[in-house]
Amino acid sequence: MQFEITKENIELIRDFVKSKNSAELLKILDFLHPADIAEIMDDLSVNEAKFIYLLLDGEKASDVLVEIPDNDRRRFLKVLQPDFIASKFIEHMDSDDAADVVAELDEEVQKEVLNEIEDLGQAGDIVDLLEYEEDTAGGIMAKELVSVNENLTIAACLKEISSQAEEVDEIYYIYVIDDTEKLKGILSLKKLILNPTSTKISKLYNADVKMVNTDARQEEVAEIMDKYDLVTIPVVDDIGRLKGRITFDDVIDFVREEAEKDYQMVSGITGDVEPGDKIWEVLRARLPWLLIGLLGGILGAVVLSNNEESLKTVTELAFFIPLIAAMGGNVGVQSSSIVVQSIASGVKDIETTSRKLIKEVSVALFTATIFAILIFTYNFFSQGNMNLTYSVSLSLFIVILFASLFGTVIPMILNRFKIDPALATGPFITTMNDILGLLIYLVIGKMFFGLL
Amino acid sequence: MQFEITKENIELIRDFVKSKNSAELLKILDFLHPADIAEIMDDLSVNEAKFIYLLLDGEKASDVLVEIPDNDRRRFLKVLQPDFIASKFIEHMDSDDAADVVAELDEEVQKEVLNEIEDLGQAGDIVDLLEYEEDTAGGIMAKELVSVNENLTIAACLKEISSQAEEVDEIYYIYVIDDTEKLKGILSLKKLILNPTSTKISKLYNADVKMVNTDARQEEVAEIMDKYDLVTIPVVDDIGRLKGRITFDDVIDFVREEAEKDYQMVSGITGDVEPGDKIWEVLRARLPWLLIGLLGGILGAVVLSNNEESLKTVTELAFFIPLIAAMGGNVGVQSSSIVVQSIASGVKDIETTSRKLIKEVSVALFTATIFAILIFTYNFFSQGNMNLTYSVSLSLFIVILFASLFGTVIPMILNRFKIDPALATGPFITTMNDILGLLIYLVIGKMFFGLL
Repeated sequence: MQFEITKENIELIRDFVKSKNSAELLKILDFLHPADIAEIMDDLSVNEAKFIYLLLDGEKASDVLVEIPDNDRRRFLKVLQPDFIASKFIEHMDSDDAADVVAELDEEVQKEVLNEIEDLGQAGDIVDLLEYEEDTAGGIMAKELVSVNENLTIAACLKEISSQAEEVDEIYYIYVIDDTEKLKGILSLKKLILNPTSTKISKLYNADVKMVNTDARQEEVAEIMDKYDLVTIPVVDDIGRLKGRITFDDVIDFVREEAEKDYQMVSGITGDVEPGDKIWEVLRARLPWLLIGLLGGILGAVVLSNNEESLKTVTELAFFIPLIAAMGGNVGVQSSSIVVQSIASGVKDIETTSRKLIKEVSVALFTATIFAILIFTYNFFSQGNMNLTYSVSLSLFIVILFASLFGTVIPMILNRFKIDPALATGPFITTMNDILGLLIYLVIGKMFFGLL
Repeated sequence: MQFEITKENIELIRDFVKSKNSAELLKILDFLHPADIAEIMDDLSVNEAKFIYLLLDGEKASDVLVEIPDNDRRRFLKVLQPDFIASKFIEHMDSDDAADVVAELDEEVQKEVLNEIEDLGQAGDIVDLLEYEEDTAGGIMAKELVSVNENLTIAACLKEISSQAEEVDEIYYIYVIDDTEKLKGILSLKKLILNPTSTKISKLYNADVKMVNTDARQEEVAEIMDKYDLVTIPVVDDIGRLKGRITFDDVIDFVREEAEKDYQMVSGITGDVEPGDKIWEVLRARLPWLLIGLLGGILGAVVLSNNEESLKTVTELAFFIPLIAAMGGNVGVQSSSIVVQSIASGVKDIETTSRKLIKEVSVALFTATIFAILIFTYNFFSQGNMNLTYSVSLSLFIVILFASLFGTVIPMILNRFKIDPALATGPFITTMNDILGLLIYLVIGKMFFGLL
């Protein structure tokens, strides 16, 4: 069966839901991957979605619930009873997903749901995971993993695996621990298969294993997994005991989301804007930064109106206002984006702050000189007004220097104070540099034209 | 042994290289992961790097070579002899990495290197892979994989695996094929371990497997692997024969690189700027878009100087030039970024082009109305000049509408013509909207002040 996710097919599904045609719906749902069903859910009302969830078995229903966007999930869970949430969804989830979902519930409901979970081991795991901060390794790890004692033979290990494997979807590695549960190393299934069953695990495992502490930050985990191309990474506590593992898919999502966040900031959008979004959702994401732009523009108007006389006397000064503003804005965005990207890339940075600043100042000096010469040349040949020519060139030189400097320093300062440095990119830095450029330009212009 | 990658430790390594102290170097290198060595290589000269490569065994040397940035690798390979490239690097690489490296060589050298490879099977694999276009599934897949015939039993399969496993670093899945090499499904090692050895493979494998065609585009592969959280995806030809597999690490890199590229575009940077870059490398990345900004600024000056008389008569008009320019720029960047992100996210988009446009126009109308009212209110209360108040409000309204429209339509058109839509974000759209805004504002202003 072939089922494309198209406008028409989603209408078809809605019609089936409306007519309560479970048989036809099941035919479609059986064929679809949870990620596809989640995509369809996006276009359904809460009640339509609920009807679909009721049709799905627990395993698939919970896979779908994990795939839908956080906001939709929160809204949906609000209309459900705790025992339904527990039995239909939570009990079929891996501990990391279950903890994430439970964490999204109101505190009151959280407790009720946790008490409804029949498997006490699972409920305990979830409670354990909820202890960790959300954006740490502990907060994103799953507790489901296969671990064996280093003293076992392959034969014993295989038995152990079959008893543990039930609850783990995919086994990428087997974690080898000692008697005190300390992580000793990892063992690939390949080695397990390719060696005689009497071989001791201690002879086989790879002790050179990358691991992270439960309180390692999510960025750090992503950086390590990305750098070393790891499918999974084990998470240990302060004394090295194995606590859980993180898989690559969590990290891909994180890397993409972080990149998207920075992209949105520099574009002046707050939060995700997705193809299916309502108009007011798009507006909400776009208006805040535009307001800042408006305020900047008004401030610019105030600055200019305070110089009305000068502008009346030397109208030519007005000609280059857009140029000065645009160059200041562009240079500022470039500088701040480079800083943000170098912070976000997580590459261990061997350049010191002072070296970074020296380099940025050199780049800024070069850039400022080049563009000052370019605009000087243009003005020199295109018009006879030497005062204007000097004013524009010198202003552009200074504006580029300042814009670079602010673009570099402000995100660095924000980062030092643990504020997202990306805040200082995009409309923020453009607006700031607009005003600053205007002030510099007016002062220098008035100087050259003897109006000061 | 603990070895942090710091400025001091890199100097230490350079000193050891200078004094040809192989013993001390090997102690350090033995401890380091290839990805770490690659990071250190970044700060070494070609000759220093060569000395390090010579110390490393082939396996590790080639892992390091794969990890260093493309440009550095190309520069480094240029100074090496074909037989050295083949024996030290290529022969120890997986086919996908080997093909990537060979593809980077000059055509002449390519042939020589291929002829120097001793393992004819590997040379053949590389030649096969070079046939595929670089950014297709065929171009990024590796040929190393473990496949078994569906008619085997687990016992026979295990034997088969041990004979094939030698050349494959990690086995995540076993691919099940029929007698004609068509891909039938995948088998997890977990199932292999947990079932009796007499079980037939045909009873065990999972036939519901996501796969891609050799000519699927890289974006599509990334989208599928990301959506369905796949560690690996098999690649098949037009009649379904198994040709290779792609692993998650290639996709993480691709997702990150794509996001970075879009980010750089909207920030007005061409290409990567990394912490270690030389000043001229940073300049080269930054100057092109600034030049466009400069040209836009000059064009703006021309437009304004053509309206010198009007500006002299109604100097107040100049006050709101920065505001109009800034708002047009910000709105344009927002619109274009949203389009680019929705294209890049690869979410199958059920909104038609016309629906998208209707939505964008609605958002633009709302935004334009809100900001026109805001600026009208501000001007109404802050100053008595009603002509100016009308001019600015109406201009802002029209500029926001146009900026949204262009910001949306231009990337869509670029994408239609298979040009990277991200080109239309950042300085490009800002500069365009600056000029456009200026023109609109001047015409409307002159209209209200009776100067037309």
